[in-house]
Amino acid sequence: MNFYKVTVLPETLQIQVPADTPLKQVLIDNGIDFEFPCGGLGVCKRCKLKIIKSDGQVQDVLACQYKVNEDITVKLHQRELKHGILSEGIQRHVTVDALIKKVYFELPRPSLSDNRDDWRRVINQKGIKTSLKVLQDLPENLRRSDFKITTVLEGDKVIAVENHDTTHKLLGMAFDIGTTTIAGYLIDLKTGNELCKVSSLNPQTKFGADVISRISFASESPEGLYKLHSAVVDEINNLIQEAVKQTKNSHLDIYAVTFAGNTTMHHLLLKILPKYLARAPYVPVVTEPVVVDAAQINIKINPEGRVFTFPNIAGFVGGDTVAAALAAELDKASKLKLLVDIGTNGEIVLGRKGKYLACSTAAGPAFEGVQISCGMRGASGAIDHVSIGEEYKYTVIGNTSPEGLAGSGIVDTVAELIKVGIVDKKGRLLKAEEIKTRLGQKYKDKITSINGILAFVIAEGSSGPVYINQKDIREFQLAKGAIAAGIEILLKAFGANTKDIDEVFLAGAFGNYLNPESACAVGLIPKELEDRIKGIGNAAGVGAKLAVISYKEYERAVNLSRKIEYIELSSHPEFNSTFFNKVGFE
Amino acid sequence: MNFYKVTVLPETLQIQVPADTPLKQVLIDNGIDFEFPCGGLGVCKRCKLKIIKSDGQVQDVLACQYKVNEDITVKLHQRELKHGILSEGIQRHVTVDALIKKVYFELPRPSLSDNRDDWRRVINQKGIKTSLKVLQDLPENLRRSDFKITTVLEGDKVIAVENHDTTHKLLGMAFDIGTTTIAGYLIDLKTGNELCKVSSLNPQTKFGADVISRISFASESPEGLYKLHSAVVDEINNLIQEAVKQTKNSHLDIYAVTFAGNTTMHHLLLKILPKYLARAPYVPVVTEPVVVDAAQINIKINPEGRVFTFPNIAGFVGGDTVAAALAAELDKASKLKLLVDIGTNGEIVLGRKGKYLACSTAAGPAFEGVQISCGMRGASGAIDHVSIGEEYKYTVIGNTSPEGLAGSGIVDTVAELIKVGIVDKKGRLLKAEEIKTRLGQKYKDKITSINGILAFVIAEGSSGPVYINQKDIREFQLAKGAIAAGIEILLKAFGANTKDIDEVFLAGAFGNYLNPESACAVGLIPKELEDRIKGIGNAAGVGAKLAVISYKEYERAVNLSRKIEYIELSSHPEFNSTFFNKVGFE
Repeated sequence: MNFYKVTVLPETLQIQVPADTPLKQVLIDNGIDFEFPCGGLGVCKRCKLKIIKSDGQVQDVLACQYKVNEDITVKLHQRELKHGILSEGIQRHVTVDALIKKVYFELPRPSLSDNRDDWRRVINQKGIKTSLKVLQDLPENLRRSDFKITTVLEGDKVIAVENHDTTHKLLGMAFDIGTTTIAGYLIDLKTGNELCKVSSLNPQTKFGADVISRISFASESPEGLYKLHSAVVDEINNLIQEAVKQTKNSHLDIYAVTFAGNTTMHHLLLKILPKYLARAPYVPVVTEPVVVDAAQINIKINPEGRVFTFPNIAGFVGGDTVAAALAAELDKASKLKLLVDIGTNGEIVLGRKGKYLACSTAAGPAFEGVQISCGMRGASGAIDHVSIGEEYKYTVIGNTSPEGLAGSGIVDTVAELIKVGIVDKKGRLLKAEEIKTRLGQKYKDKITSINGILAFVIAEGSSGPVYINQKDIREFQLAKGAIAAGIEILLKAFGANTKDIDEVFLAGAFGNYLNPESACAVGLIPKELEDRIKGIGNAAGVGAKLAVISYKEYERAVNLSRKIEYIELSSHPEFNSTFFNKVGFE
Repeated sequence: MNFYKVTVLPETLQIQVPADTPLKQVLIDNGIDFEFPCGGLGVCKRCKLKIIKSDGQVQDVLACQYKVNEDITVKLHQRELKHGILSEGIQRHVTVDALIKKVYFELPRPSLSDNRDDWRRVINQKGIKTSLKVLQDLPENLRRSDFKITTVLEGDKVIAVENHDTTHKLLGMAFDIGTTTIAGYLIDLKTGNELCKVSSLNPQTKFGADVISRISFASESPEGLYKLHSAVVDEINNLIQEAVKQTKNSHLDIYAVTFAGNTTMHHLLLKILPKYLARAPYVPVVTEPVVVDAAQINIKINPEGRVFTFPNIAGFVGGDTVAAALAAELDKASKLKLLVDIGTNGEIVLGRKGKYLACSTAAGPAFEGVQISCGMRGASGAIDHVSIGEEYKYTVIGNTSPEGLAGSGIVDTVAELIKVGIVDKKGRLLKAEEIKTRLGQKYKDKITSINGILAFVIAEGSSGPVYINQKDIREFQLAKGAIAAGIEILLKAFGANTKDIDEVFLAGAFGNYLNPESACAVGLIPKELEDRIKGIGNAAGVGAKLAVISYKEYERAVNLSRKIEYIELSSHPEFNSTFFNKVGFE
């Protein structure tokens, strides 16, 4: 039977399927959250997508009807990604040299002339460590397998022994633990291939939407910490179970898991009290990389498996930023680079090979739609782009009826409203009668008072108008002002100028949707950097994947983290004045 | 108030007591098993003992009446040591530098200008490791103690953190796990002082008296292994509890335990299957030193405490032999030394600085009284010395009525019977009418048939005659022949002669009681070494104590163990012929 390769983008999933396999089945079997509203009858035509053939030819097909009979690439829109998590904005090629390795041995059987102990027979070398469990299982493992065994190694430690040759089976998982969403990637540690992606909402959300409320819940009582810890661990275990089920693997073949998350997520995952993160001087319990037995925090992989967390930098610059910095290779070149990771929080790293500065701003939520009247995450139904000129256009994620406004949509809207003269340089939304420009006049009917606050209606959605109001614009100004001020303070502390920056990496789900022109128009990013902006999507997830595939990448992240110096903005003498200079739109 | 020092021998216990303290109280308070039959009324005079004053003057006193008003040394007989375990036959002075250390820190409190994470605040240095538990407890520990904490270190790993300055409290325990008896020593790791000694029968005895029967019990089912493991661990925990209770300490202050035991005891302690020790080619599971968390094998000390086992050499030369070799400092000088450790088994090590050979003989039990008609361990009531000449004398441990024959008593009896011509060179016990010598004739009435076997009655005991019969002498010949053959084979393999041996260390409870003249007369030890024999008692226990006090001594034992080469006697081409040459008394 012939087999063909289906490459799914933007998830970079590669699947081998037998000839004549319906594309619908490929998508379902591989856990891709793609909808077939009419159940695959070919009636609604909502499952239409573009396939790219190996000769480059692009064709529109209905996923429910199309059968695979050649190598194809399927390009999916973002709406089918669960919870709108961007999979990757970066492509990196690394040599596979995983955190955990396997080595197979065919050993001589003991005899009176070779009566070395069992352990010496396996490891005929000093300095190699092991666990009591391995020693306890060793005598029967060796004899059941006729002295043919596979050792599972973490560095110079044998963490497990398996009977016969199992070197072909070695899995890892990489997790990006966000405050809002958790994304996990099942990785073949022999090939480095990503076998599948799983994701879900962070169930800690029910104890508090942001890190501050979770820290306070965790600090109220030991039960609070326990509940938050268990919630995330249980969800991670569900995702692991889902990933191995989808790919017909066993969780026992997973020996390594990497975790990238902000400092609060890191502490909660490890059941470390995050209490002092939330009060000055905002100290974490630990920033050094913490590596523990998976069983110690109840992660359900092989019982001998290991968990590798990314190191933190400070209370509000965590392992996710380090993972993003690794993904963006901030340590690679001698040119100055800027990383802006906008998630629920906003972290900024500026530096060049060998020296880095980082800061954090509590400015993120607005970009994720939090505290914005019609704000929502970048999921199906969110307006992600707005263009106001002679023509009036907007796009909705998933091409559905608009339900709210994504971060990138907010940036676009504000940038466009300034351009056409409906919002002034100070951020004031003008009343219809105050508008002086021709284009502004053209859209004055969209200005109205909603709930007593002046608003600009972007679109009429299925459940009411999607709008931005004066309060939203003020909220946005605070957020963008904080990030812009952070960038300026880092530049000053580094002794560099804006023009010295060679590349700007925008990480976070938001980064990939963001229109660089708008970002610069609103002053989020300095104008002269407009053509150097690169959206790198969920860079923390990419970093977590790189680390599990290559222990050198993990070490690289650790080294990088040690060179990143943290600047506390809240006590910085110039923060307030810089911030007020950045709030407006001059 | 004045304080005086009471040194108790042979336990080398040093105790500071206030002036006027009754010696009775000193002995009771320090857990020394010394009896006061009349309850301390000064009536029975059974508590009489010798004290040595600082000027060397020796004085007989009644322990119940004497009060300490100067520095004294008290010499105790062996009878007060529970189960007759010899405490020490060696004196060693080592610098206290324990396996676990404590360091106290008064740390600066965090501030916005010093917002290092908690862990970095404690350890401002890379490469120092710790456990998740320490990190989990750290934030509250630091703040409860106003940033004054004590770290508990194993090498470069912080295993625990305690509030405030607790450096004055740091305890360790050293255990000698014998097949028959367990001895434990509670040690102050700050001073190296032995605080008390505890001992008990090894409860595994109920599953089998010797290692072979225990191995077979452990190998029959997983429950068998579990039962043997739990039995010894429970007893160790009882002894730990007893030791801390006696000295008014807490088990939570114990952070290190060393264990010296033969390979089977080692495996059972660690719940490692000893099955393959008992069948050719007799391979252990592990010989390298195993160090584990105490909690992993359920040893009840501080939950973060650590267990250090002595490395093994082979299936029947274990960590107890390594500990004895450490105690005897086989690695010290360039002169050839011989160590013979006679317990339930007999292990022999021969070597000089840098090169050592070891072998094992299943010859021990006879010397511990096993398989000997009236045999018993060297406890109260055992005849330990016999002298047959113009005078007929014997001594009984504890000065009580004789109940049986200790190993040293067997050696003496056989030696003396040969000397007076009652036993011939081939080991035959002569009938009364066959005796030709005058001295032999003198004792011919002691020769009689008991249970149909010709016997020599040594003494009339409270519950019948204590005697040695023809079968016992044959048993003894097998045992001493095996050890003598082992010594000869090691000498040959080493390329050395008997006269090259500079010192002979006789370890084991038996070693201290043994009369060197008799040992040589029966051919257990070559005659020319008679004046080089040194009884070193429970050298394994001494080794275990040295290791817990000094990590360098533990490392020394590990290094020594790696240089000891094992010679398997059962497959050695010359063993049988050498053995048969050694069975007689020529």
